[in-house]
Amino acid sequence: MDHHKLVLPEHMNHYGFLFGGYLLQWIDEFAYITATVDYPGLRFVTVAMDNLQFRRGIDTGEVLRFVVDKAGTGRTSVRYRIRAHGIVKQPDPATVLFETMVTFVNVDAAGRKTPLPGQT
Amino acid sequence: MDHHKLVLPEHMNHYGFLFGGYLLQWIDEFAYITATVDYPGLRFVTVAMDNLQFRRGIDTGEVLRFVVDKAGTGRTSVRYRIRAHGIVKQPDPATVLFETMVTFVNVDAAGRKTPLPGQT
Amino acid sequence: MDHHKLVLPEHMNHYGFLFGGYLLQWIDEFAYITATVDYPGLRFVTVAMDNLQFRRGIDTGEVLRFVVDKAGTGRTSVRYRIRAHGIVKQPDPATVLFETMVTFVNVDAAGRKTPLPGQT
Amino acid sequence: MDHHKLVLPEHMNHYGFLFGGYLLQWIDEFAYITATVDYPGLRFVTVAMDNLQFRRGIDTGEVLRFVVDKAGTGRTSVRYRIRAHGIVKQPDPATVLFETMVTFVNVDAAGRKTPLPGQT
Amino acid sequence: MDHHKLVLPEHMNHYGFLFGGYLLQWIDEFAYITATVDYPGLRFVTVAMDNLQFRRGIDTGEVLRFVVDKAGTGRTSVRYRIRAHGIVKQPDPATVLFETMVTFVNVDAAGRKTPLPGQT
Amino acid sequence: MDHHKLVLPEHMNHYGFLFGGYLLQWIDEFAYITATVDYPGLRFVTVAMDNLQFRRGIDTGEVLRFVVDKAGTGRTSVRYRIRAHGIVKQPDPATVLFETMVTFVNVDAAGRKTPLPGQT
Repeated sequence: MDHHKLVLPEHMNHYGFLFGGYLLQWIDEFAYITATVDYPGLRFVTVAMDNLQFRRGIDTGEVLRFVVDKAGTGRTSVRYRIRAHGIVKQPDPATVLFETMVTFVNVDAAGRKTPLPGQT
Repeated sequence: MDHHKLVLPEHMNHYGFLFGGYLLQWIDEFAYITATVDYPGLRFVTVAMDNLQFRRGIDTGEVLRFVVDKAGTGRTSVRYRIRAHGIVKQPDPATVLFETMVTFVNVDAAGRKTPLPGQT
Repeated sequence: MDHHKLVLPEHMNHYGFLFGGYLLQWIDEFAYITATVDYPGLRFVTVAMDNLQFRRGIDTGEVLRFVVDKAGTGRTSVRYRIRAHGIVKQPDPATVLFETMVTFVNVDAAGRKTPLPGQT
Repeated sequence: MDHHKLVLPEHMNHYGFLFGGYLLQWIDEFAYITATVDYPGLRFVTVAMDNLQFRRGIDTGEVLRFVVDKAGTGRTSVRYRIRAHGIVKQPDPATVLFETMVTFVNVDAAGRKTPLPGQT
Repeated sequence: MDHHKLVLPEHMNHYGFLFGGYLLQWIDEFAYITATVDYPGLRFVTVAMDNLQFRRGIDTGEVLRFVVDKAGTGRTSVRYRIRAHGIVKQPDPATVLFETMVTFVNVDAAGRKTPLPGQT
Repeated sequence: MDHHKLVLPEHMNHYGFLFGGYLLQWIDEFAYITATVDYPGLRFVTVAMDNLQFRRGIDTGEVLRFVVDKAGTGRTSVRYRIRAHGIVKQPDPATVLFETMVTFVNVDAAGRKTPLPGQT
């Protein structure tokens, strides 16, 4: 599932590149939305992120494309790989600017881990 | 080096707990500040985070204490471990609510990796 | 082109529904991104919105799906229809919660109207 | 009723002008406040905006003056015209930089349309 | 000169009242705008605030009315008194919920104190 | 107790210096956190700030160090002095860029003033 974000001056750090903290906030939201679309009616909480790699500085005016792919499931959890590309200011839109893995766990209303549909 | 943050209603997700995206944004800022205090005059960019573990839901009104410790250095890089504790709403302020490792690289004005002081 | 947004408590008005001001801000960003993807390399400014209709209150925790379709082009302008649906809390994801039309004009670096590609 | 807003760097788009999304957010708030002052004790929801025209780019440091005038009433609704002027950076403070019409409907606590005072 | 602000859930502290930090931010903006309207073309910087008194908790949904009055001028400075009233949720709109004095100094482009018009 | 904050482009005013409104918001949060650490379990509300002096313009990229010291206690109240220093862009980190006093009152759940521990 794809998501896009416009990088504005309010997102810059003092070096004139995207402040990583905003990127992380967007990742968390886009991964959560993807899980919610894939598994309607479940209740997910983020439990882990791995291998966050910030590969390039990102300019204002860039439009980021986040590609979110399911990378695997456990009994109560699902993992997504997220890659960000720049489609306006990068010479090659296939270049990966940022990459990470996010793991969600399905919980019930009391916060207890609960099997995904089809798991027991 | 310690940092503190007050968790406000504006930081909540729709389940009534701290939205992870804000936590990640604070981590990035606190780790950067710590590196800047430890290495005055250098220019750091975040290149990686590892092993982010969200262990507990965090309530509004919580005051988070972030403990940032240097975990190691390379020729051009420095790593920090960050642990977050809750000092108002947690029964035990030693409980780790969130944990990660952040890696910064020292760059020159052109963005090239540059040795840390004392490295060659 | 589709865009999604998670509605969080920070977006609520004092009646407990999505504050319309945030919805408008998201619309402007999503329409702009769509135009940028459709017409790479052009420089668009928003000149008008029409027929904004707020049809339903929107709850926290809702995931909004914005469907952005090209509705027409002029010599220097392009129009998009935007419709928002709720995919988590609405009984029918086909229900339109909000609808508008956005018009962009293509400008040069000096801000003068400039024909779209294929126009003269 | 007049409202004023200082345009700051955090409100800029990547072309160096006011991001339209912020302007729309302010409009919604200022129109709502005006309706609340005009009709104390009622409960208004925004149902429509029309004829939004972005006529000029707006710079950082501008102080915007929003003039909000009642344009008409229906049995359960009231309409306001909003015009924005620039009083610091525009050569003529009478120039209209942005204009729209906002329609509110008066609702009861259950969200049902309710006549305005003096209507039946 | 009057200014108004709608208090939204995003402005609450964890006790369910307006977070004072937002109130202070609005005060600074409204006082600055007033000085800019009173003295077109000058360049003001805030140098002091005095006697900030937070007298009452403020609820979400409140519409605050800020009354900003000139309290005096020096050779290079001007002082404003700001009082905030609640016009929706307070039984008496004359009640002062918050009060302070703000002092601005007129500076030139190099930041040096500069006499107000009519001063030498 | 010390607190630190990274000044980002989103915090600038249109003169290219830190917008005072953000500084005030940070002060309120840092003073509140300090009081909460000093007096665990109490419920504090800000009742006053005094002698706010903005002494210098502050640049983007500055890391501010806020030193918060207890300045005195009353039967139900506690006062803190807050001084801000710049540790990255100021030639002398001992220079005070901003200074104020904040007074908190301890209240019970109904909002009534309540003695501090050890007071009667």
